[in-house]
Amino acid sequence: MSGNTIGRLFCVTTFGESHGPALGAVVDGCPPGLALVEQDIQADLELRRTGTSRHTSQRQEPDRVRILSGVFEGRTTGTAIGLLVENTDARSRDYDRIKDRFRPGHADYAYQQKYGFRDHRGGGRSSARITVATVAAGAIARKYLREKLGLEVAGWLSQAGPHRLDCVDLASARGNPFFCADPSKVPMLEEYLWQLRREGDSIGAKVSVRATRVPPGLGEPMFDRLDADIAYAMMGINAAKAVEIGDGVAVAAQRGSEHRDELTPSGFAANHSGGTLGGISSGQDLIVHVSFKPTSSIQVPGRTVDVAGQAAEIVTTGRHDPCVGLRAVPIVEAMLLIVLMDHFLRHRGQCADVVSPTPDITR
Amino acid sequence: MSGNTIGRLFCVTTFGESHGPALGAVVDGCPPGLALVEQDIQADLELRRTGTSRHTSQRQEPDRVRILSGVFEGRTTGTAIGLLVENTDARSRDYDRIKDRFRPGHADYAYQQKYGFRDHRGGGRSSARITVATVAAGAIARKYLREKLGLEVAGWLSQAGPHRLDCVDLASARGNPFFCADPSKVPMLEEYLWQLRREGDSIGAKVSVRATRVPPGLGEPMFDRLDADIAYAMMGINAAKAVEIGDGVAVAAQRGSEHRDELTPSGFAANHSGGTLGGISSGQDLIVHVSFKPTSSIQVPGRTVDVAGQAAEIVTTGRHDPCVGLRAVPIVEAMLLIVLMDHFLRHRGQCADVVSPTPDITR
Amino acid sequence: MSGNTIGRLFCVTTFGESHGPALGAVVDGCPPGLALVEQDIQADLELRRTGTSRHTSQRQEPDRVRILSGVFEGRTTGTAIGLLVENTDARSRDYDRIKDRFRPGHADYAYQQKYGFRDHRGGGRSSARITVATVAAGAIARKYLREKLGLEVAGWLSQAGPHRLDCVDLASARGNPFFCADPSKVPMLEEYLWQLRREGDSIGAKVSVRATRVPPGLGEPMFDRLDADIAYAMMGINAAKAVEIGDGVAVAAQRGSEHRDELTPSGFAANHSGGTLGGISSGQDLIVHVSFKPTSSIQVPGRTVDVAGQAAEIVTTGRHDPCVGLRAVPIVEAMLLIVLMDHFLRHRGQCADVVSPTPDITR
Amino acid sequence: MSGNTIGRLFCVTTFGESHGPALGAVVDGCPPGLALVEQDIQADLELRRTGTSRHTSQRQEPDRVRILSGVFEGRTTGTAIGLLVENTDARSRDYDRIKDRFRPGHADYAYQQKYGFRDHRGGGRSSARITVATVAAGAIARKYLREKLGLEVAGWLSQAGPHRLDCVDLASARGNPFFCADPSKVPMLEEYLWQLRREGDSIGAKVSVRATRVPPGLGEPMFDRLDADIAYAMMGINAAKAVEIGDGVAVAAQRGSEHRDELTPSGFAANHSGGTLGGISSGQDLIVHVSFKPTSSIQVPGRTVDVAGQAAEIVTTGRHDPCVGLRAVPIVEAMLLIVLMDHFLRHRGQCADVVSPTPDITR
Repeated sequence: MSGNTIGRLFCVTTFGESHGPALGAVVDGCPPGLALVEQDIQADLELRRTGTSRHTSQRQEPDRVRILSGVFEGRTTGTAIGLLVENTDARSRDYDRIKDRFRPGHADYAYQQKYGFRDHRGGGRSSARITVATVAAGAIARKYLREKLGLEVAGWLSQAGPHRLDCVDLASARGNPFFCADPSKVPMLEEYLWQLRREGDSIGAKVSVRATRVPPGLGEPMFDRLDADIAYAMMGINAAKAVEIGDGVAVAAQRGSEHRDELTPSGFAANHSGGTLGGISSGQDLIVHVSFKPTSSIQVPGRTVDVAGQAAEIVTTGRHDPCVGLRAVPIVEAMLLIVLMDHFLRHRGQCADVVSPTPDITR
Repeated sequence: MSGNTIGRLFCVTTFGESHGPALGAVVDGCPPGLALVEQDIQADLELRRTGTSRHTSQRQEPDRVRILSGVFEGRTTGTAIGLLVENTDARSRDYDRIKDRFRPGHADYAYQQKYGFRDHRGGGRSSARITVATVAAGAIARKYLREKLGLEVAGWLSQAGPHRLDCVDLASARGNPFFCADPSKVPMLEEYLWQLRREGDSIGAKVSVRATRVPPGLGEPMFDRLDADIAYAMMGINAAKAVEIGDGVAVAAQRGSEHRDELTPSGFAANHSGGTLGGISSGQDLIVHVSFKPTSSIQVPGRTVDVAGQAAEIVTTGRHDPCVGLRAVPIVEAMLLIVLMDHFLRHRGQCADVVSPTPDITR
Repeated sequence: MSGNTIGRLFCVTTFGESHGPALGAVVDGCPPGLALVEQDIQADLELRRTGTSRHTSQRQEPDRVRILSGVFEGRTTGTAIGLLVENTDARSRDYDRIKDRFRPGHADYAYQQKYGFRDHRGGGRSSARITVATVAAGAIARKYLREKLGLEVAGWLSQAGPHRLDCVDLASARGNPFFCADPSKVPMLEEYLWQLRREGDSIGAKVSVRATRVPPGLGEPMFDRLDADIAYAMMGINAAKAVEIGDGVAVAAQRGSEHRDELTPSGFAANHSGGTLGGISSGQDLIVHVSFKPTSSIQVPGRTVDVAGQAAEIVTTGRHDPCVGLRAVPIVEAMLLIVLMDHFLRHRGQCADVVSPTPDITR
Repeated sequence: MSGNTIGRLFCVTTFGESHGPALGAVVDGCPPGLALVEQDIQADLELRRTGTSRHTSQRQEPDRVRILSGVFEGRTTGTAIGLLVENTDARSRDYDRIKDRFRPGHADYAYQQKYGFRDHRGGGRSSARITVATVAAGAIARKYLREKLGLEVAGWLSQAGPHRLDCVDLASARGNPFFCADPSKVPMLEEYLWQLRREGDSIGAKVSVRATRVPPGLGEPMFDRLDADIAYAMMGINAAKAVEIGDGVAVAAQRGSEHRDELTPSGFAANHSGGTLGGISSGQDLIVHVSFKPTSSIQVPGRTVDVAGQAAEIVTTGRHDPCVGLRAVPIVEAMLLIVLMDHFLRHRGQCADVVSPTPDITR
């Protein structure tokens, strides 16, 4: 329960560094009897793989996952599921130049002051590479929630720099390297991101995610609200700087008469709340937005200090994404799935006896 | 560690409902030897009290706190600190009308579906009243962090509806009922909010908070990042819909060359990051923004359903705030203080042996 | 989740000191809809009250419990239940003499070295008085488990000093001040304990407890085994020095052919295991034994050191039990109930989908 | 934080089954800067390896550990340490016969009822084999505590069936396959255990462990007492049925005047308490005893039921230990080391500011 575990009943503990021998996760608390094979997990890993388009890091990693425990004869046993992904294409030499100086916008300086030294190779534990383990764990939650509840989680790129991107066709988001849900915008993004790469600069982005068929009643009233645990999970993703539920920051300018979602026997009249009321799921679609800062690893020279605190200049080389947000969609989905899975089990533990006299107006 | 406890080493567990006999908190893990008397806590409770201006709920609660344990001869003993605040001005009759129907925008429907029934009086556990206990606990963290580190946390109202409010004079925020840090805007807010009350409507708001003298190194790399735990704490506040760190949602439109905060021997050249790098405090000021939705309890009639799921109309009476954000400042401060306190103790537990060869460029 | 909370889903957090204004507990995670009034809790508190016979401390405490939250119209709401018991008969003057010297066998010296100072009045947080809060919380678990599962937990005094005490009539244990389940031994105990008091000395004891109708399947395979959590709970009781499950220490001398409980279609052929297999409940009766050391507060003079580390002599006055074990029965029951309640909810959270092809041979 | 994680700040999460591809652990929260190589861990793994004498299971496992993360250039980084041990000598065929019937005294029936089915190969997650991961994690705690505090943990076999075994020469315990600390008794044990094997039966045992140079002040007052967490850890070891601290079960027959350890300026006059007072370490040696039941896998035929609940007979084949206690010593040591490590970090987190006016009489 130190910093590398998320969840109370569905607990995911991860380990590994960008240039270490392997990455892994222990998924503890998964219900027994779930049909699970490595391919179920591999599918989600494919979505976040690098080197699959010219718009992401060119690092080539097969990201083959091995299930080391917790599955017997194709079904989860209910005991801890060990997952392992070997690193194969680490190029640590690329990082020798930054061994003694801190990359602006990176965790380098903070790690140095926390631990007294750091694994500088590819950012070590602070690399986005480690989200491989999170995505693998999320795939297990996805399979359970889909089979048990018909619950689906799907994300898309809703903003890239100055460009707002609507969700025109959510299914299409998985068909392009940008997770763009507006097919008409894909060519523009192609050009825009390629131009950025030529300039050696990077750009921020916003990712949105929707969960459907979320049962009402998930989340705890006080601190462990569903939206609070979602905010924790999302802000824990590399480069995340803002988390919004439903209308998010826009609510600050809304009136009560505009924001409150009226109830009718056939469902809610609107969904400004994004699917939670008082921190508990209402049965409406969950809507979450996460803003990601631009990659700090760019070719543009910048000022920094070295390990001794002396002034230095830096130009980051190595293989990087011009827009980390592009690859955040599968990670945002995984984090939401893990939180929903945990709260589904928690709610069932406490409230399995409950029968509400009120019909579920959202179904 | 069900839903009413926050923290790993500095653990705050709260209980109580809006119209129950009392509210309370158990603060566990506070370092021993801290000088503490009830007045230290009372000061923060005064900041969030209702009925102190015509712009907040007219409910009159003295909010006198009693320390029931954990303090001996004026110093914390290191054992659990029990805090109690009695409710004295509950008017449950006001709520009889909503006993059988759900207030749009409120937790009513979600609670009903989670638990099968609910304490409808003043929202029960979902009322903002329960933050009294959080603020009391935060006051203890404030005193320790101030005395130990010189760390200060101060918030202000940065937006009320369409009105953006700059932080011109932070100290002045405590001098007006709006926690407005721009004295020139106070008369405008007076008129604006009074007009809203006349219309029987409400408005959203954004609250910002800054922590100074935060030591570098607080936070864990993976899930329990400092910013992740802050996001969890803030989104756990009633009516919160968005949490931003540093530049927040604006980062989605920034370039890497613009966002990354360069390092110099005399400190960081900017603070777009808001004080965390890789989820770990950098030693810069922590900057957090929280967006609050408008109060859902308004005089404007609205559609809803009753406990049987039948269509109904509702007009919320009772005593309410036209803008909950106005009173959120002390709560946002308390939440940040609790998270910082917990991470300070966690960091000290793991890393007390660390001596970094790199000077703290922020001091 | 610092040291004053027990449980994962059914979480009990307690606070209070022997001579502070009050003791309390927050019971978090209780299922909603449980009928609960203060008298349900009072009944268990009566069982552990002092001053009810000449064989226990003469401190007179009514131990009236107040439910401060979490119950509405006579039913639990599913939110945190706050419980409060005021202290009324503290005689702190009795303890002035030990303010500056450490009582041998007490926590005094350990607290001093951990915290740098201590609340010496009646032992502060280390007093057995604080188990009032634990017993109050256990009463809630008892009511739920009884109504839901027909599960019953009952304990008895199985040893007092040299005297082994059989469980002849478990029901009779609640009818005498010793919780002795062998009515024929009560007169002997009367005389034995009175003699001890005259000598100003004290004696150890062993308490045994049985839980019936425990469903099979409670407990986790690895660390959070049911027996492990029981051992944690029991060893956490003041003065406990040993915890045994089933045959306990006797197993070290048993052969496999003797110990293993054979299975038959009509149940297990024996219960050497005490109701757990691989740390998971088997459906048999749970049998637990806890050994308590003798009260260290005796009239016999002893050597000690003072706060400065100088040699000193001590004679403990104040009001004490000659045999703390006598009053441990309700506490042992409460601890077992809390652990069973927590594991029942945990198991239901993870395994509610499970249907075993194997009949429950214990029913 | 489900069942496969132990610890609050020093957190060990394990996974793996007896006949799965690998076993592993994630050690989270280890202080940074600790010199660590695989051989440091290998040394402890050698102590628990099977197949090293004719008195343990003949399964041949090299138990080579790989460090997959958390160590950089020979030092711990402060991030999660991933450990992996491959299984190489699983003979699952041996277990086909028990696929459909439950071994008496084993977890088989309890797992079946909890999860609805089970990995029957070698007991799956319930096998003692999985303690490989625990021992590996304990080795890291051992190295830190030794280097930081000079703290040493060493165990010995204190009873085997009817034979009580004194601690004559603790160092010698590592020199024989029984961890017997009385060299004169080794030949007798040789003969005794060989005879048992010939009879196809097994025997219970008791293991004792001592920790020296434990600083005073470790442990929390209420539930997370040091002795409570030790009891939890020890009872969580396969086949453990009793945990005793200090004089353990014997205290039930002791008088206060006999049990209480008097204090003198040069230390405690005795150590009946076993090193804890009020659940907090006193600075004396920690003394813990754990009783293990006899292996249930024996050649003696026994009654059982099959998966359908029908009567059946069973004779366990496969490779087993006639006395699991023989191999429990390194596991008991590892568990104690993990608990002490966790509490050392927890104590430092809360109480690093403390300076006691009282000298440490135990040094």
